[in-house]
Amino acid sequence: MRLKAVLLNCTLKKSPAVSNTEALMRKVIEVLESLDVECELIRVVDHNVPFGVESDMGDGDEWPKILEKVLGADILIMGMSIWFGVRSSVAQMVIERLDGTYNTTNDVGQYPLYNKVGGVVVTGNEDGAHDCASNTLFNMSHLGLAIPPNADTYWLGNAGPGPSYIEAGGEDHPYTQKTTQWMAHNVVHLARTLKKHPIPPEGNTVPGWQPEDCKHREQRMPAGHVG
Amino acid sequence: MRLKAVLLNCTLKKSPAVSNTEALMRKVIEVLESLDVECELIRVVDHNVPFGVESDMGDGDEWPKILEKVLGADILIMGMSIWFGVRSSVAQMVIERLDGTYNTTNDVGQYPLYNKVGGVVVTGNEDGAHDCASNTLFNMSHLGLAIPPNADTYWLGNAGPGPSYIEAGGEDHPYTQKTTQWMAHNVVHLARTLKKHPIPPEGNTVPGWQPEDCKHREQRMPAGHVG
Amino acid sequence: MRLKAVLLNCTLKKSPAVSNTEALMRKVIEVLESLDVECELIRVVDHNVPFGVESDMGDGDEWPKILEKVLGADILIMGMSIWFGVRSSVAQMVIERLDGTYNTTNDVGQYPLYNKVGGVVVTGNEDGAHDCASNTLFNMSHLGLAIPPNADTYWLGNAGPGPSYIEAGGEDHPYTQKTTQWMAHNVVHLARTLKKHPIPPEGNTVPGWQPEDCKHREQRMPAGHVG
Amino acid sequence: MRLKAVLLNCTLKKSPAVSNTEALMRKVIEVLESLDVECELIRVVDHNVPFGVESDMGDGDEWPKILEKVLGADILIMGMSIWFGVRSSVAQMVIERLDGTYNTTNDVGQYPLYNKVGGVVVTGNEDGAHDCASNTLFNMSHLGLAIPPNADTYWLGNAGPGPSYIEAGGEDHPYTQKTTQWMAHNVVHLARTLKKHPIPPEGNTVPGWQPEDCKHREQRMPAGHVG
Repeated sequence: MRLKAVLLNCTLKKSPAVSNTEALMRKVIEVLESLDVECELIRVVDHNVPFGVESDMGDGDEWPKILEKVLGADILIMGMSIWFGVRSSVAQMVIERLDGTYNTTNDVGQYPLYNKVGGVVVTGNEDGAHDCASNTLFNMSHLGLAIPPNADTYWLGNAGPGPSYIEAGGEDHPYTQKTTQWMAHNVVHLARTLKKHPIPPEGNTVPGWQPEDCKHREQRMPAGHVG
Repeated sequence: MRLKAVLLNCTLKKSPAVSNTEALMRKVIEVLESLDVECELIRVVDHNVPFGVESDMGDGDEWPKILEKVLGADILIMGMSIWFGVRSSVAQMVIERLDGTYNTTNDVGQYPLYNKVGGVVVTGNEDGAHDCASNTLFNMSHLGLAIPPNADTYWLGNAGPGPSYIEAGGEDHPYTQKTTQWMAHNVVHLARTLKKHPIPPEGNTVPGWQPEDCKHREQRMPAGHVG
Repeated sequence: MRLKAVLLNCTLKKSPAVSNTEALMRKVIEVLESLDVECELIRVVDHNVPFGVESDMGDGDEWPKILEKVLGADILIMGMSIWFGVRSSVAQMVIERLDGTYNTTNDVGQYPLYNKVGGVVVTGNEDGAHDCASNTLFNMSHLGLAIPPNADTYWLGNAGPGPSYIEAGGEDHPYTQKTTQWMAHNVVHLARTLKKHPIPPEGNTVPGWQPEDCKHREQRMPAGHVG
Repeated sequence: MRLKAVLLNCTLKKSPAVSNTEALMRKVIEVLESLDVECELIRVVDHNVPFGVESDMGDGDEWPKILEKVLGADILIMGMSIWFGVRSSVAQMVIERLDGTYNTTNDVGQYPLYNKVGGVVVTGNEDGAHDCASNTLFNMSHLGLAIPPNADTYWLGNAGPGPSYIEAGGEDHPYTQKTTQWMAHNVVHLARTLKKHPIPPEGNTVPGWQPEDCKHREQRMPAGHVG
């Protein structure tokens, strides 16, 4: 059972500029590939992705082709830089574009990102990784992704301006090395489990949901469906 | 396979004062019990729980008995009120006390909260639920819990002061009703799955971890361990 | 002493699409104009503003002309919509572009946004205004702006999807009306005060600062400079 | 014109345990005292301060005596440690207790903390200072305090566990030294200015405010009141 991962690099810088976040994402990819996961790394700003909250904003919007890859993957990793303590504008834009997925469902009536697994990579010269990761993983969970334990890895320096991941030799930082291992392994563990044992479409489906349904739960949930 | 859930109500108010958060937590319990989950609801401020980051602060600390229940459960739900846009001080205190779990592992070397599932309940008269839920679910994921899709339910009114959940008739609010169903079902779905198919202790264990281990991954991960 | 205010509308939507945030910003402008403030409202996405952290990214970048207006104003108001509980990507992009101002100073060696005053306007269909406003006002304070009491106004509905400011009749919401008054008055009060009594360049200047300077404070701060 | 500052140390640890946050707060005090500010440092957990949102929770509550000092000061500095990326539970508790001030006004009808100035000190072994500072300064601004530019100073190490401020030699960290100077000077500059030129009670008063008043602004605001 081979898994696919899509990794969206949400740096502000277009290729071929050096991306510190990408350098750490490549460490994650090394682990994922060692676990037999097929990885595709996409630098969002290299594509024409306009602001918006629909899945296709028209006018040459290249988000649909990225979204198609996300929908075809088992694992979604978002990488981002920190600016002013907050996730990059590109990361925020990607989350906004994923809002469009709320308008469709998977085959069993759940949000289309159900049964996929999310993880986050953050780099900054200082402070802000918790805020970036918590917002992003939470948004992912709202969109339907499951979040394994220790689903993030990050590098950052101490207080104030300073060198970034590559220049600072972040690849040798033990904590980041450890969490890179943990994150990469755990997204794979959970993705494998959910691929074999998906979350049943019970109590969590979208179409036609009405508050009244709550009173008739037995009609929506066939006996023995769970487990 | 019966599951156990511990629900920590992190309101500021001691019993018997009315707790809006508890009112919504009881809605969650209704769904959990309908799914054959044994539930225990604990109002933290009714117990002597001092500030600290160890699992036992001595001097009559009653956190150890609460922690024991958390460690014996499959599902941990934290309920909290919003104050000034941020989770209640009691919720923050509970997260701080859980820091003590980092000093131990489960039987296979992972953090002791691995293979448990987390969810969050938030109420406020206005604004702040995303911040409370994202921080809390993220902290839970760091502690080892897995987070299912749509792992939170909340109620809040529109901008500014106003009535809280009970007085405002929040129990009839369709969005909160829907997310209560989704959250309760999904923590159960994922807890059942992880109870049968736990996250393997591969690439995510604590004791004796050293950066050097990364170079010898095959020694740490027996072939065929995953899946 | 006439004041100038620049108001940056950080909606995702280009003109002529309706902007709920703009509708509330226009309420702020009404108050500002009644207090004899000259206002200029700029919708950022109507201009060619690329991602980046420099003040001029080249290639037809239109940020420099916006920045020039900001630098010429006494008051900077940022308006933004909430997406997924976080400020819009456009608002984040604007903050990132303001990073470029750190590379210059005003005439007395402070950051160039010193002695200007900041305020924030937020709209969303639900939840997230505190997070948007706190991050934005804090970032502004780092950039050099002063923040008066009650420096934000926002509108949002109750939990979950729902109508936005205009459709929901947010203009009649007492709390938002009140905070619009407070915010608009207070940015003017403080801007007037700082225009007459600027923050002295003492203990807060940029160029050539070295930790060693701390030991020679009297050299940097002429007697009687303060007050 | 001598100023008074109250500094609330919101560490989790009771005296005489070492407080890293206090060590940095003492650096701030050094600067404040050099600027002729009378400083009082209070470690909140050394006092009996229960959870709550009223100014006096009874039963030996010692918050009222702390609040009295805050109300008598020109400058309020809150110091706090980071836990799990979020401000300490004690800092959150202090903000919650300040909620009680909304029930009173100063002599001219503004919130009682108007015309005071706020600043923040944060220490942690890693990540989270922006989140702590932004929430706290924003909450302060809601309560009525004015926030000068660069109103925070913090120290934190790089990603992951590690030594705290004192052990790590944080007192020699240039960025923290610089921001300590900036913060301390700027709270003094602004407090002096507001003491001489307070924010006029115009458009920002509490009692009896009604939306209708907006239509009769001229009645509430005597000509020439501003400036």
